[in-house]
Formats: sequence, C-alpha cells, structure tokens
Amino acid sequence: MDFKGYLDKINCPDDVKKMNFDELKGLAQDIRNGILNRVNTVSGHLGSDLGFVEATIALHYVFNSPKDKFVLDVSHQCYAHKMLTGRKSGFLTPINTEISGYSNTDESVHDHFKIGHTSTSISLALGMAKARDLKSEDYNVIAVIGDGSLSGGEALEGLNNAAVLNGNFIIVLNDNEMCIGPTYGGLYEALRELRDSMGTCSNNMFKSMGYDYYYVDEGNNTEKLIETFKKVKDTKKPTVVHIHTLKGKGYEPAEKDKESFHYAMPGFLNASGENETPVETYNSITTDYLLAKKQQDNRIIAISPATPGVSNFTPEFREKMGKNYTDVDIAEQHSIGYISGLAKNGAKPVLAILSSFIQRAYDQLSQDLALNNAPATILIYWGGISSADMTHLNIFDIPLISNIPNIVYLSPTNKEEYLAMLDWSVEQSEHPVAIRVPFCNLVSTGVKDTTDYSILNKYKLIEKGEKVAIIAAGNFFNLGIEVKSELNRRLGINATLINPVYMSGIDTEMLESLKQSHDIVITLEDGCIDGGFGEKITRFYGDSDMKVLNYGAKKEFTDRVPLDKLYQRYRLTKELITEDIAKLSGLTVNL
Amino acid sequence: MDFKGYLDKINCPDDVKKMNFDELKGLAQDIRNGILNRVNTVSGHLGSDLGFVEATIALHYVFNSPKDKFVLDVSHQCYAHKMLTGRKSGFLTPINTEISGYSNTDESVHDHFKIGHTSTSISLALGMAKARDLKSEDYNVIAVIGDGSLSGGEALEGLNNAAVLNGNFIIVLNDNEMCIGPTYGGLYEALRELRDSMGTCSNNMFKSMGYDYYYVDEGNNTEKLIETFKKVKDTKKPTVVHIHTLKGKGYEPAEKDKESFHYAMPGFLNASGENETPVETYNSITTDYLLAKKQQDNRIIAISPATPGVSNFTPEFREKMGKNYTDVDIAEQHSIGYISGLAKNGAKPVLAILSSFIQRAYDQLSQDLALNNAPATILIYWGGISSADMTHLNIFDIPLISNIPNIVYLSPTNKEEYLAMLDWSVEQSEHPVAIRVPFCNLVSTGVKDTTDYSILNKYKLIEKGEKVAIIAAGNFFNLGIEVKSELNRRLGINATLINPVYMSGIDTEMLESLKQSHDIVITLEDGCIDGGFGEKITRFYGDSDMKVLNYGAKKEFTDRVPLDKLYQRYRLTKELITEDIAKLSGLTVNL
Repeated sequence: MDFKGYLDKINCPDDVKKMNFDELKGLAQDIRNGILNRVNTVSGHLGSDLGFVEATIALHYVFNSPKDKFVLDVSHQCYAHKMLTGRKSGFLTPINTEISGYSNTDESVHDHFKIGHTSTSISLALGMAKARDLKSEDYNVIAVIGDGSLSGGEALEGLNNAAVLNGNFIIVLNDNEMCIGPTYGGLYEALRELRDSMGTCSNNMFKSMGYDYYYVDEGNNTEKLIETFKKVKDTKKPTVVHIHTLKGKGYEPAEKDKESFHYAMPGFLNASGENETPVETYNSITTDYLLAKKQQDNRIIAISPATPGVSNFTPEFREKMGKNYTDVDIAEQHSIGYISGLAKNGAKPVLAILSSFIQRAYDQLSQDLALNNAPATILIYWGGISSADMTHLNIFDIPLISNIPNIVYLSPTNKEEYLAMLDWSVEQSEHPVAIRVPFCNLVSTGVKDTTDYSILNKYKLIEKGEKVAIIAAGNFFNLGIEVKSELNRRLGINATLINPVYMSGIDTEMLESLKQSHDIVITLEDGCIDGGFGEKITRFYGDSDMKVLNYGAKKEFTDRVPLDKLYQRYRLTKELITEDIAKLSGLTVNL
Repeated sequence: MDFKGYLDKINCPDDVKKMNFDELKGLAQDIRNGILNRVNTVSGHLGSDLGFVEATIALHYVFNSPKDKFVLDVSHQCYAHKMLTGRKSGFLTPINTEISGYSNTDESVHDHFKIGHTSTSISLALGMAKARDLKSEDYNVIAVIGDGSLSGGEALEGLNNAAVLNGNFIIVLNDNEMCIGPTYGGLYEALRELRDSMGTCSNNMFKSMGYDYYYVDEGNNTEKLIETFKKVKDTKKPTVVHIHTLKGKGYEPAEKDKESFHYAMPGFLNASGENETPVETYNSITTDYLLAKKQQDNRIIAISPATPGVSNFTPEFREKMGKNYTDVDIAEQHSIGYISGLAKNGAKPVLAILSSFIQRAYDQLSQDLALNNAPATILIYWGGISSADMTHLNIFDIPLISNIPNIVYLSPTNKEEYLAMLDWSVEQSEHPVAIRVPFCNLVSTGVKDTTDYSILNKYKLIEKGEKVAIIAAGNFFNLGIEVKSELNRRLGINATLINPVYMSGIDTEMLESLKQSHDIVITLEDGCIDGGFGEKITRFYGDSDMKVLNYGAKKEFTDRVPLDKLYQRYRLTKELITEDIAKLSGLTVNL
C-alpha cells in the first residue's frame, strides 16, 4: 500500500480541520489505502466504505465530534470515521484486529452505539437529539443512512417521526445507487429522479414530509460536501442532505462490479480472478433445486431481502429465474407478508434469509404467516454458534421461530434430508415451514430420503442403545455421533442416537419410550439454549426420573470469540459432554 | 336501530351492484346502524368503520369480489365489508357473536387473511398480486390501508416494493386524518398537503415512487368514489387512490371526539357521559408517577407508539407532559430505536406498549436496545392469557423478551412492587428493563417496597415451607397463594411460596437450596410456556431429582375462548394443580 503520510498526521478529528483541500485529497487517498489494506487482510465491507471517504472527511471537517454526534447506519460506511477517530491501527500494517469492522462504543467516544443491522441510524440519532433537547444542550446530531438501508421499515418509521422534531436533526443520505446488490423499489425510483434533476424535481418525498432538503451531486468531492455541510450546520430544522456517491470509488474492480465488492474476503487484491472449481454446497443444491423446479412449475418463486449473496442467488441465477425471483430490497418484515400473500394465493414462495436478519420479522412470522397457516418456505442461513461479530450472531433463530404456533421448523443434517424437506415444504399446502440450512460442509448419504415430513414432530431413531439418549439436531448431529462413540469408548455405554428433525415440537411417543431403558437424555442444538428446542424436552421429562442435560449457547452476546473457545465455554465437545455424563452417572472416565 | 330495509336486500356483493345511487345512500345508513348496533352490543372499532362505509359500498359496486381481492388493513375498516359479504347477522339484532370483528378467512371467501395487526395489507396483497401474475390469472388486487397504519414499517416497505410490480395493484389509502389517536409525523404532513391541494401539490410521495395517483376529496360520497374506482379498475400499473374520509362519520359524538370513539365499549349509545368515580389502577399509578417525576426531572419522557389508550395516556396527561411526551405514530420498531437513543444520551424514556405489539420490535430489542445496554424502561401492557381474538393474544412477550441477552424483564405482583421497580428502572443506568404491568385489579400491600432490584435474578421467598415449592409470577402470584392454601387443606402440605420477580433469569442459589427439603417445584406464568421462564427452571433441575411442573398457556393461537375454559384446558386452577401434585406425590386428595 502506497500510504502518503497524511494519516500519520491524524490522531483525532481536529487534525482534519488543520488540513487544506490538497491535503484532504491526499488524506482521502490514504484512507482508501487503509480500507483496501484492512479488507484485504481481515475481510470487510469494501464498496460503501470506499464511497463514503470524502463525506466522512467533510463531516469531521465541518462538525465537532464527539460534541456533535454522528450515527452511521449499518456501519457499512464507518471505516473512514474509525481512521479519523483514533483507530487507524485497525487499517495500517500490521492490522490491529482488536478494532472491529463496526461502530463500537467500547472503542471510541466518537461512536455512540454498537451497530451492525441496517436501517437503525435515524431512530437512534433521533432519540439522541430529543434527549439533547430535553437536557437543553446544543449540538448537531447527524444520522448517516444509505447503501440501500433507507428501505428498511425502521428507517422509514424514523424518517416519519424525525420530520416533526422541533430542532436540529441532520440526515445524510448516502445515495450510491446501490443496496448490497442492486436496488429495486419505488424509493429508489424517487432517488433516481432527484439525482437526475440535481435535486430539483417536483416530487420530492423528503420535502413532502417537511424536511429541508439539500442535494450534492458530487458526493466524492470533499470541497463541495464541506460547502453544503457548513450550510446545514446548527440548523434548527430536520434536514436531509442527499449526497450522490460512487460505491467502490477509487478501486476500479469495485467501481465496475459493485455487488461482488460490497464485501470482500482476505487476499482479494491478489486473487487470480479465475473461478474456483465448483464444489457442491448447501447453497448450490438449493439454487439447482429452484432452477429445476421452475422448469416444471411456474408457481415457484425465490425471494431475497437484499441479501442474495447469503444464498448465492447470483446475477446468473436471478436472470434464469426471471419473473420467478423477487428482491424486496432491505425489507424483512415485508418479505414475510409478501410470501404469506404469495402462498395464500397459490404460489410457492421460498424466502432465503440470514438467521440474524429474520429477527426483523417476528411479528410478521406470527401474524401474517403462522396465524394464516400460509404454506410458504423460509430458508434460514448461517444458523449456529460462530466467531461472528456481536451484531451478527446467528443463535437466536430457534428460540424465535420455534415458539410461534403453527410454524414447522426443520433442522436437516445432510443433503438428501435437506432436499427432501425442501421439496416437501414447497409441495405441501398446510403449514408455514422454516428450514435451517445446514451451516457446515455438505454431507451426503447417497440415499434418497423418503421420509414423510407431514407427520409432524416425528423424531428419527438413528441407532437404538440404552442408558443414555443423545438428541442431536442439525449442525450438531455430527457432534452427536462423536459423543456416542466417545461414550462407548470411555464409559462403555452404548448410547441411543436420535435426529429430532423438528425444532418446533417434540415426539412425545419416542420421548416416552426412552423412559424404559434410559436414565439420561442429552440435547445438542447449535444455538441459544434459552427458549430453544432442548428446553421443551426437559419440560417433557419434568415429572419423571429422567435426567436431562441441554447443550447449546448461553444467552449472551459474544464478539468475535474464536469458535473453539465458545465450544469450550459451552462444553460442546465430545470430551466435556462425556465428562458431564460420567459425573451424572457416577462413572469413571477411561482415558 | 332504525334500519330501513336496505340491508335485507343484500346477501352477496352482487346485490350492491343492483342498487341505484339513492338506494346505496339508504344502504350506507343501514350499514352505519349495523356498526353502531354491533359495537354497542359487543364492543369494537367504531370511528374508522363508520368512515369507510361509502368506500366499501363503492368497492363492491365497482369490483367483483371474491374474484377481485380486497385486503383490508388492521381490519379497522372491515365491518361494512362483512355486512356486504354474507355476514350481516354479526351486526343485526340479535347479534351473531360467532362473526368476529376482524377479517377472517374461516367466515368468508371474501376475506383472504386473518388480520388484526396494522400495516400488513400492502405486503399481503402484493404477494397475492404476484401469485396472480405467476399463474397468468387476471383480476384486481386491492389493498386498503389507512387510519394511521401507513406509518408502520411493514406498510412502508411494502409501498416501496409494490411500486415496481409490473401489473395491476391498487392501494386505497383511507385518509381520515387520524391514527388511533392523532397523527404526528412527516407522512401525515405530506397527506395534509395533498388534501389541501386536492391532490395536486408538487411534492407527491406516491408519484415520486412511480405510482399512478388519484385523489378523492369526498371520500364519503359513494358516487364520486365509484367514478374513481371505475377509472382505476383493471389498471396495469401500481396505483394509489387517496380518499379523504371522516372518522366517525354519521355518529356525531364520534365525529367530534375521534380519539375516544376509535373503539367503543358495549352500551356507549346510552352512556350517561358522566365520569365514573376514579379508581386507582395500574394505569393511573403509572401516569401519576410519570407526572410527578417530570416535576423533579426534565429528562423523563413517556412514549407511545400510537396506542395512548392502552396506557391511559389521555389528552390531559399528554398536555401536562408537554415536550416530555412523544407519540411516534404506529412505529413499534422505531419506538425501540428511539428510546435506545434517548437512554444512551442521558434521558429517561418510558415506553408504554401492548404485549401483542412489542412483537413488532424483536430485532430492535436485541440490537438497538439490548446489545447497547441502553437503560430505557419498557412497560408491557395486557400481558396474560385472555379471551381475546386470535390476532391480539398477549401470551408471547415472555418467550420473546426473556430470551434476549441483557434485558431485565420484571414481573411485579402488586402496586408497591411495581412502583419500586419502575422507579428503580428509571433511575438506573446499567440495563434495559421491561416491566410486565400487572393485568388485573390493583393489589396494594400498603408497605413501601425497598428491594434493591439491581441485584439481578434474586427471587423473593415469600413463605418457606417444604416438599412443594410454588414459583408464581406476576398476574399468577395470587394463584400461587391459592394453590398453597389448597395444598395445605387437601394434601396437608405446607408449601413454599416464591415470587420470582425476574422473567429473564433464574436465582440459582435459591433453586439450589430448595433441593434440601423439596421434591416438587411448580412454576406458574401467565403466558406461553414454550420458551417461557418456567422452562429455564426446569432446565436448572434437569440433572437433579427434583420434579418440576410448568404451568402456563400452550403454544397455540386461541380465538375468543372464554378465560375459564382456557384455565381448565391449561390446568390453571388451584384444584387441578393440586390434583397434579397429588398424583405426582402418590397422595390422595382430601375433599
């Protein structure tokens, strides 16, 4: 990286104010290098951060953080801000990996929230502004939103409410013409018209709501931005500054292929560009299934809430699906209402959504979908304990979904089981179905699964043993196999192994039958134990002599904790589980 | 009621088409009488239904339901539709109470969803329209939205997505200038400007998104509405028909006091109008607390997401609170982001929200609030098992809230405990706190509660006994007292009684100590057992000899089932619980 030394002069935002425009240009270049350097080393959000460099410099040049408060939506555009607020070590070689890729109050007084989900900045910042007014304080509160997150319900709800704050409130709308992928909806039509008319077109949705409105077409021109920010500084009215930026700015491949470079993985700067040999994955068998199904049945439709990358709904896949694909933009709540309507009117919707983001739609799952028994299919991706950032934990989907009546939540353990569940779900018309797509390497039995999943809550007895029964769900089925083997080897116990299949209900008949020759039942689930599927089993045995141990994640937010540490903490290894069982049985563990 | 016989002629929507305009006027009057008759007999939504009579007649006159599909948001404006689609018995004397007050697919092919929460109609209808197009069918799909529900995130997300459907889609926006109470935000400013300019003002948010737009100022004039609906029928473009109606139309008290008559209780037509003698309730002590607090501390702020009636935030209360009150409109997600921002910037927000509606904000509770440990206070109203409609069950808040890390969920059992918790929550700065406001008659001990609630998860040992421990939460604390007495009387057991206080964590020390002299623990919670607080206790005892019985509601949607029937079904009576304990203990019950 060819750093020019401008970042060396920046230790706090005040140092930005000391630079002249030429120096600020150099600074922008150094910041871009920092972004590329970090993402190339540890991965991260690339395109939106590259596009928001000049705006960040201009914000810090004009306003006085932390007295003035910036709230940066999704953190997709926070890297430059981090470099200007004492955290450039996270971007320079050697990368300080303690610095996260998100807004983080533990790192700096210039951050006011931990943020990773979209569309929250207006609501959070409006609360800050209102608190300021109640306390009779005087400073600017600035919410940055954009990169597609304006379409999220919370942002729009916030936009409605913020318009009537009787005081200073500035929304910087970072319009890079993109969402994570392309943008689709009417809002983006409105923004396009504003851009095309240099902010002067007659139908201005912001003005209609009562906002003062400013447009900066050259959103990557620091001077122009500074000029406008100076105008709005200390305004006493809710104000929108709509800036037009270039996603990927300054890194040509990212400017050209904005979708692919939204997020980049380590080493992308030196990637050969050659395609890797295709490997069969749960993603690839899903898209293969959908494309094949579409050939037979025009009622199939795949839906993504602006995260096509999660499910590998590539541009090629989307083109092949044609009208049988909808990207609803960032709009998780709407996505559930939409698939409910599709399913109730005879279509066969399959929604692909990240575990962490289904959290946006609890009420819609309950009311639009479950109450109406709409036979839609929801594929939950990435569910499981991981070393992810605290904002993107995927451990709460089982407590969230499985305690809503009527939804059948399935947790497959291999390719054939997954495909059989998916096809059953798509073809049936009785139940809303969620399937937790395995988040591990693909396992294939090679044998077609002919289970009838319409017989709800029927567990699969994989191997009958005695004394100990292991009920091992989804991603942790393999751990169940390992525990069974370990129990045999070290305690001489021939344990029963069960694949519970259903996260949303229990097989009372099988659980009852276990009482005959088992003293201990253990449950393994790759998610938060609190409210999870294991507790339902423990409750079943509450009035009996059966001992039950539930394994899974503790109810806590973890932040980039290595997976093996989490497994140790939660005792999720064959050795620790065997120890627990030995202790409970009064047995001695053989080495 | 002075019915003129017009409803007699209506057995299906086609009968509407046979009437001339004079007859349609008479029909409107008969429908109004039907609305008044039903609400006066069984309670219901009054003002919005009265205002949407002509629009409903016009819709059925122009379109052909059920081939053309109407989706009526919130069901706040569905009564006239029900009367025209074979369900007038629900509105004529004697009232057929089998007919519900909501859209209900079990009642009629003219309803397509069970709907009771706001802001869902656009998403649901858009799904139907897309399914129609995939199946190459040809008919109109019409989403009705309004009465304040356009501000909800799902509606706005839907509005964004629907704009780009390449086909027929009609949104009828029922603009009655009101929400449940008044409207506040920028959206309503935009609608006002459209009304004031007869739909011609320059900043039209619907046009900006790409919609065809029509305005009908006389939204209670059947002829004018028919004229416009005829114009948009069979359109091939997403279209908004903005109609201006009068909430409460035709019933003078409701026209004058739109907020009070949003919903009316049986007998309102003959109510004396005199104020009832004020009785101390959990609502009244809450508003008293907030008003008193405001005198001492300007940082206190009460917030309602457009449901001030739930918490008795009356116009008088709101006026007294002044700047220390915000109604965010229907915007539950934003309300949580907003209070998080308020709390993080040093204000003391207290949000009042219905149990059923907090479901809208799971992700915001998790990300905006809990992850940030924002010390806001959320009061959860009406939590508990009830005979409510299936769309308004308040039994899922414990599973929803108590499985999110960091949130302290308190369940008080009497006035003094509640006020102590509320004041502790407002004054502390460590935790997000939710309090389940007791949903029963006020109980007062007369003794100030001096508990330090910052010592988390500390249960209160009310009376120490042996053999059986009763852990009775919140509304069911009294049931716990009754069970204790019954166990004594009928089984000779002197049971231990515990008030668990915290729904979000367990008192491991106390639970451990119970092992010494107890064989059975029972948990009582007024909500869904699945994912609830009782299961956490059962899990704690999973590896021990303790027998545990969890009592609460089954995971199911119930619809207007009488409360005593539900209590029987869930064995939530002192007699049935005593029987269960006797059976488990091998004892005989004494009569």
